[in-house]
Formats: sequence, structure tokens, C-alpha cells
Amino acid sequence: MPLVEELRRVVGDAHAGRAGAAVLADASEQRAFAGRADAVVAPADAAEVAAVVAWCYEHDVAITPRGGGSGLAGGAVPVAGGVVLDLGRLDRLRAFEPEGWRMEVEAGMRTSEVARRAREHGLWFPPDPGAAEQSTIGGNIATNAGGPHAFRYGVTGAWVTGLEAVIAPGEVVRVGGPVRKDVAGLDLKRLLIGSEGVLGIVTAAWLRLIPAPEAALPVVAVYPDAAAGQRALTTLLASGVQPAVLEFLDAGAVAAAAGAFPGAGLGAGAGFMLVAEADGTPEAARAVRGELLEVLGEEGEIVHAPEDLAGVRALWRWRDGVSYSVVAQRGGKLSEDIAVPPERLAEAVAGTVEIGARHGLPACSWGHAGDGNLHSTFLLDREDAGELARAQRAAHELFDLAVALGGTISGEHGIGALKRPDLERFEAPAVRRLQHGVKAVFDPKGLFNPGKAI
Amino acid sequence: MPLVEELRRVVGDAHAGRAGAAVLADASEQRAFAGRADAVVAPADAAEVAAVVAWCYEHDVAITPRGGGSGLAGGAVPVAGGVVLDLGRLDRLRAFEPEGWRMEVEAGMRTSEVARRAREHGLWFPPDPGAAEQSTIGGNIATNAGGPHAFRYGVTGAWVTGLEAVIAPGEVVRVGGPVRKDVAGLDLKRLLIGSEGVLGIVTAAWLRLIPAPEAALPVVAVYPDAAAGQRALTTLLASGVQPAVLEFLDAGAVAAAAGAFPGAGLGAGAGFMLVAEADGTPEAARAVRGELLEVLGEEGEIVHAPEDLAGVRALWRWRDGVSYSVVAQRGGKLSEDIAVPPERLAEAVAGTVEIGARHGLPACSWGHAGDGNLHSTFLLDREDAGELARAQRAAHELFDLAVALGGTISGEHGIGALKRPDLERFEAPAVRRLQHGVKAVFDPKGLFNPGKAI
Repeated sequence: MPLVEELRRVVGDAHAGRAGAAVLADASEQRAFAGRADAVVAPADAAEVAAVVAWCYEHDVAITPRGGGSGLAGGAVPVAGGVVLDLGRLDRLRAFEPEGWRMEVEAGMRTSEVARRAREHGLWFPPDPGAAEQSTIGGNIATNAGGPHAFRYGVTGAWVTGLEAVIAPGEVVRVGGPVRKDVAGLDLKRLLIGSEGVLGIVTAAWLRLIPAPEAALPVVAVYPDAAAGQRALTTLLASGVQPAVLEFLDAGAVAAAAGAFPGAGLGAGAGFMLVAEADGTPEAARAVRGELLEVLGEEGEIVHAPEDLAGVRALWRWRDGVSYSVVAQRGGKLSEDIAVPPERLAEAVAGTVEIGARHGLPACSWGHAGDGNLHSTFLLDREDAGELARAQRAAHELFDLAVALGGTISGEHGIGALKRPDLERFEAPAVRRLQHGVKAVFDPKGLFNPGKAI
Repeated sequence: MPLVEELRRVVGDAHAGRAGAAVLADASEQRAFAGRADAVVAPADAAEVAAVVAWCYEHDVAITPRGGGSGLAGGAVPVAGGVVLDLGRLDRLRAFEPEGWRMEVEAGMRTSEVARRAREHGLWFPPDPGAAEQSTIGGNIATNAGGPHAFRYGVTGAWVTGLEAVIAPGEVVRVGGPVRKDVAGLDLKRLLIGSEGVLGIVTAAWLRLIPAPEAALPVVAVYPDAAAGQRALTTLLASGVQPAVLEFLDAGAVAAAAGAFPGAGLGAGAGFMLVAEADGTPEAARAVRGELLEVLGEEGEIVHAPEDLAGVRALWRWRDGVSYSVVAQRGGKLSEDIAVPPERLAEAVAGTVEIGARHGLPACSWGHAGDGNLHSTFLLDREDAGELARAQRAAHELFDLAVALGGTISGEHGIGALKRPDLERFEAPAVRRLQHGVKAVFDPKGLFNPGKAI
């Protein structure tokens, strides 16, 4: 086993070994998608990452970086053998400068830990992708992850001012830094954000923070159907009110998650749900909450609007669990994350159900209404290979729909390995040429996360 | 004059000609910096831009794109002959979708016109760089321009969801679009933002908007010196209050602009000024204003806090004019835009004056305190070449100071032609290699804005 032996010399005996099943899949496992790798290596710090990359680059060994393994597009799944580079040991807080509203963290720190550290000083890191306990900030940066608060506050990339990364053939570089504004040279930091590890390995990041809002007050309204929900959404966007969060669940998602809903029981008439949140100072949040109640209640029924912290937290825990409730329907799912202009949301919601029906699969969607970002989901029996194949064909049609509505095939999960063939269908040849040209500049041997993103 | 004749065939007789003095300089003219070009061409639309680029690419002619000519780093100044590509005729509003909080505009639209169009529908485009009446949105995108509201709302790039650009050898491409979230493939849109025209020519952009804040209430406080101002700034950042704007003027800038100050007369004791603004709903803005008055008034004197719209507008007009008031001192200036961590602001302010003194030049600074972004300025007599040379040496030292304080040599103006030698001093060789590699992918002949940015 010369590969593992060699890597042990770089990172120590305890931190390199055979690649077990745990590092060959990610949260997209419901698609029976798993890779193969010759070794897993867990460097201690950026210098060891550089040493591993140098060794791999010298020996033409593929490198698949891995954060929390919570990705949904196969981005962390090794598809070409070689080494899985587990960044979990790079979990240090390098600097915390609360008076400058910033921190520097290593890539392997859990997203929830980033949030917790910020909160200790009354500060806030707004990006809140779904699997915060599993995902790492490095993974969030690699996919430019979103989440409910992206509506008002932007996605992960909006909060990164500097990156440390290991590039080929094994060198640590820094782009950007603690400063909040920097326009010196081409923005390689922004190019690395969302690059899914195909250009280099992010090892640490300077994150921008803001004072945590003192109050956050959600309002939940239900509508008889998606058309009525769309009217409420459009009216709200036109009203001048600015919520921090603007989520939705369609009829199927509401039905799946209704049992655990922390408010009053949801009747059978809940054909569509909007969840908005007002935030800011207590005065501001209360004022916006009042407007939300008015606008969302015009044509809908306000079913829940907790004002106590426990009630608010329970609501968001429930929202986090929607995905699990949906899986519980049939044991498995294939979930995509298309995005469309928000005024086309109802069309995408209806289209998801129609496409599922054409392939004999129940379907539903939920997600980030304000960003027009849908988790369009086909429910399936994981043991039934035929259903999975049908779901994959359905996803194909779903992407056509997203593009036809003026949208994109991925709003926040990334392309990974699973959506690559679809990306190629929609990308202009000139854009593809540039993408591959940039890739070749960073990674002339094509060893960084092969088979992903581009 | 075959070049001009050929270009006239592409854009029509009226829209190509000899390059007059007006297109050979930008707002950095106080440095006696002007270029040379063989022709100026003003295409009507993206298709004509592509045709001009195709012609230039075929004939190895350099292309210098030009927006409003308000840049301060020589980014729009042709330094290698060839063609100045004036984008002023691409000034159309292509789409306005207020219910989706977005518009698509062509690159030549004035920044002030973008703002005006948004306001007509109660919406707001937050980026507000200094020369909004002269600058174009394309120029703002090319430099990723900032402005006072960048403190809370981010720089131009945060508000661009899609770009149309002409790339080599003369093709119109689109990256991103109207959708607010998109992680499909490498983020070429973000790479083009801030690239100063060296990768391609931005011809149109989808811009994200938000509802205009109903209220914006500024508070102006003065302090005996920069150290006291720094304490107030740090206390404010630590207080949990989140202003929309957080500007400063040092003693020299206050003295230069005091005469026009729209509040009560500024005494000689005004050694440092902070200008903060609370915004949001009327309730929220009033609450934050109260906190600003308290925190900034602790150690400082509140000299102005207008609540009426006319008073607020007068204050910001005055702030916009600071640069002119400073020029008026000696007839000329060399102004840089370093950025440092905000808790090092006072050091950068003192350092600016010290460096000026070493070179026999009065100096002052003002700018965006919350972002640590200083317009560090050396005052000079424009007719005195010796003073200009001394100011350039002083700027050199200023960049050393910015980097030593953990900052950058350009927070918002860009590198252009003028700061290129300085960028090279501070850039790691590996980063430079990547920058030039990316440039070569987009522009193998090196014809897009040669001599700039990288």
C-alpha cells in the first residue's frame, strides 16, 4: 500500500489510511451515488495540505477535498480514485476581532460553530445553509452556499473578505484578507468561492460579521393554492416591506411536515405556505411584523406568528426538518435546487408536480421564495432502481423548465458530479471554453476534484 | 486614416473618429497623466461592440473601454494606442421588473440614472460612488466601485446578478442573469466584476434592487483629534448598533470643507469628524439615530443631525463636495484610496499626514471609516512638476503603510495604469502567475485594456 504509506509520512500514521465508505459518499446518497478512492488523508494545517497537494501533484494522484459531507450534488464524492482530502482537522479559530466585525477561521470549522463563536460576541454570520451542524465553512465557501437568510443578507460569498488556499503544485496563497474592501487585481477570491474545489483547496477564510439583530419575528401564512401564494408573494415584494427571510412550502411539503408544525394544526386547506421573518431592532422588527401580518393576511390565513424566542426557534427547527419529513413519505427522494425569478415561482411549483406525475412519482417543493430558489423534490422508494432512474429523467426535465423560466439549474447546492451533464446542455460554448481555460491555469494536471463543477 | 475608415464601416460615419483629448485622460488628470490612441469609436449596442472587438482582434489593435471617464487610477486612459471604445451610447434600460426587485441596464447608463430609475418605483440601488453624475454603471462594475453606503450594503458587485460581455475574439456572452442565486459553474461573472476591462467588455448588467429605506437620518460628531475619533468609531462598532453609513474626515479635510458645512459653524477644535447615518423604517431609523447620538456624543460633540429631507440632502451634497474643497486648497491633489482594518484608521490618518510632511506636502484624508477606506490625499500645485513627483513618492510610502497595517493599496478606485507598479510590489508571485494566466485565457492577444490592473 505505497500510496497510504507515503501519505503517512506527510501527515503522520494516524491521519492517512484506506478510504472507508464514509468518505465515498455525501448527502446525495439517496441516488445510490458513491465513488472510489485509494486513500483518505487528514492534514493538520495548511502547510500539511500543501505537502499533500505537492505529493499528489508530483505523482499524478487526484485530490477530492471533503468538508462535512453534507453536499447534495456529489461535489465531495471521489469519482476518479486518488486521495480524499479530509479537512476536518483544520477547525481552528485563527483570529476573532469583534471590534472589527470579523474572524478568521480554518476551512474545517462547522458552520454552526462559526455561528456560535460570532454570537458569543453579539455578532452574526448570516449565511445559514440547511445542514449547519454537519457542513463546514470550507464546504459552504466551495459551493457558495445559501440558506433562508440569503434573501436579505446574501449568500456565503458576500461574507468572505479573504481566503487562504493551497494551489498547484502545492503552495499556500492568500487572496483578500481582513479588509472589507479590496479591488487590487483580478478577484481570484471570488473566483475560488463556489468553485467546488476544482481550482484549489480553501484552507482558511476571513469572514465579515455584523451585529446580531436584536429581534427576529416570523409570520406564517397559508393559502388555498400556489396561485394565491404567488399573488401574496408578489404583493409583498411590491409593498416596499423588506423581510429578512421569505420561505415557502407547497401543498405536498406542507402535508408532509404538517404533523410536526409547532403552531396551530394545519388544515387540509393549506395548499401553499409562506414563512416570512421581520428582523432588526425590537421597534423595527415589530413594525415590519405588523406589515407582514397585513400583507400576507390579505388573501391568506395567518396560522402562526410566535413572538417568544422559544416559539421562534421551534418554528425554524421545524423548517430545518422539512427535508426529513419529505423523505419520510416514501423513504427516499431526489431533490434539486433550481432557481427562477420569484414571480415565476408558482409556475415552477406546478411544473415540479407535473413533471413528477409524468414519471409516476409524487413530487413537492419548498425553499426560498424570495430568491425563487426551489427544492424541487421527487419522492421515491430507495430500494427501487427503476424509480431512481425515473427521478433522474424527471430532474432532467426540471432543469429544462428552470432555464425556460429564465432561471438556473442550481441556486445553492452546486453542480458537483451529478449535474455536470446538465450544465453542459445549457452552457454556451464560449463560456465553457473560458471555464475550462481558467481551470487549466489553476490545475494544469486536472487533479483537483476531477469530474466536478465544470 | 484607414483605421478610422474601417471602424466607420462598423459603427457608421458619425461614431468613429480621431481620439480627441477628452478621451485620452480621466479624473486622474491632476497627475498630468494622459494617453494616446489612434481612434475613438462609439458602438450603438452589444452587437456593434462585438463587431469592433472582432475587427480589433483581427488587426491586433488595442482596445481601451471607456465609461464616464471619472476614474482616478487611469483605468480608462489608453496607454498603448489603438482604439478608445466609448460605451456612452449603450445607455438603454433593457428591462425593469419592479415586482422582482431588478432591472437590466446597458453599461453606458449613468450611475445617477440607474438610481433615478429605481427610485421611480420605490426601489433602491445602494452603491453610491462619488461621481454618480459622470460615472456609468459599466465603469462601476469594471472597478467594483464602492461609496458611503457600501458599509452596510456592500460594493457594486454585491448588486449584480448577471452580466452580458463581449469577449475575444468578438463574441457576446452572458454569465448569470436575472436570478438572485446561481452556483452553476465557475463564477465568471464575479471574475469580470472589478476586472477593469482587461478580460472583456461589459455591455449590460442585471442589477438587484431593494425597497428604498423610508427614512435616512444622519448624525455628525466632531472630536478633538483622530485618536478620540478612533475611540468613538471602535465603541460604535462594538455597541451592536448598525449604521448604514459611517464616514470620516480628518482635521485637514474638515478645515478644507468647513466653510460650506450645512450645519452650525465648525470650530477650530474639530480635529476629526464622524458622519453616521441610521436608515430603515421611520421607527427603526429613529431608534438607531438615538443610539448614534448617544454613542457618538459620549466623547464627541454632535454638531449636526438633520431630520428633514432638505437638511439630509444638503449634508450629503456637502460630503460629495469634500474632494473639491480639498483640491481648492492648493489647486491640485494626488488622492489614493487605501483600505485598512477600521481599528487601524487613526494610524493610517496620522501616517498620511506624516508621509506628506516628509515630502514637504500638506496632506489629509477622509472617506469610509466603517470600511477602513481612506482617501489619503497629498495637496499640490498642479503647475509644479517637482511637487507631483514628490507626491508620487509619498503615495509609494502610503501603500507600504497600508499593507503594513494589514490593508490594501486600493479599496475602491482600482489599480488602473497608475498603481500597477505598486501592485506588483505586494503581490505574491504565485498569485501574479494566476492573474496573468486568467488574463491570457480571456485575452490571448493582450488587446483588452493593455497596461492596466494586473
